[in-house]
Amino acid sequence: MLKVKLLLIGKTSYPFLRDGENEYVKRLVHYCNFECFYLSDIKNGKSYTKEELKKKESQQFLNKIERTDFVVLLDETGNHKSSIEFAHWISERLQFSHQTLVFIIGGAYGVNKELYERAQLNLALSKMTFSHQMVRMIFLEQLYRAFTIEKGEKYHHI
Amino acid sequence: MLKVKLLLIGKTSYPFLRDGENEYVKRLVHYCNFECFYLSDIKNGKSYTKEELKKKESQQFLNKIERTDFVVLLDETGNHKSSIEFAHWISERLQFSHQTLVFIIGGAYGVNKELYERAQLNLALSKMTFSHQMVRMIFLEQLYRAFTIEKGEKYHHI
Repeated sequence: MLKVKLLLIGKTSYPFLRDGENEYVKRLVHYCNFECFYLSDIKNGKSYTKEELKKKESQQFLNKIERTDFVVLLDETGNHKSSIEFAHWISERLQFSHQTLVFIIGGAYGVNKELYERAQLNLALSKMTFSHQMVRMIFLEQLYRAFTIEKGEKYHHI
Repeated sequence: MLKVKLLLIGKTSYPFLRDGENEYVKRLVHYCNFECFYLSDIKNGKSYTKEELKKKESQQFLNKIERTDFVVLLDETGNHKSSIEFAHWISERLQFSHQTLVFIIGGAYGVNKELYERAQLNLALSKMTFSHQMVRMIFLEQLYRAFTIEKGEKYHHI
């Protein structure tokens, strides 16, 4: 079973977004070996500049990545895929590789160059900027949708 | 004050999405004269084909549109705008027109040709397909974001 991890930084503060995330995580575990990791916010975050914070957060992400992981960074400037293209992409990885798929959603200020370079794919959800907390739920729904597409289930068609 | 309407069909079934919608509607009313209309689901919807349902739903939308309204259809095949481009677009309308802006999010099967032709702009939120219920919350957040961008508020930058 494909192992999929989602790495996030900081808790989701809005209850409605947390409920949304939980809904799709609950569904995803039927399709893959799925785990969601909420890394801790940087302590005394307000005492750092944006750049310092970005570096510290990125380092936290890098510490959680194994050498053999396939890393996908959710990134506004990345590739745009339709839901069907994304589903096919996941399906191909599932067929030809046993690497763990690690998706990363950065903090409010994004991630640093080192993490950009470690990522094997940069994926954009939209040309629009979504709140980084809302992106979590939107992405989880896309991931769930992708698995239902690949299984030929009706979710995508209603 | 710019008058903005959002037309939707059917209730939002997930409580977390309803809560999310309410959150952004609550914020939007400080920036524009905003109203959200939930049109009723078609009665005995299951007894119709997809095409019949699409036609009936579209007719409901058309009945709610005034001759002078500027109609924007949320549509996967439409134009992609960044949040900043969308904000500028709204700002221009605000400056040069007193037309009511009417945004429409169709039902699960989309809308018919007549409504496509009535729309002055087709707007895509993403190349990906979002659930038509989730699109509501995503769009409301974008609309709120657009107004904060135009007012030079910090929301878009954190």
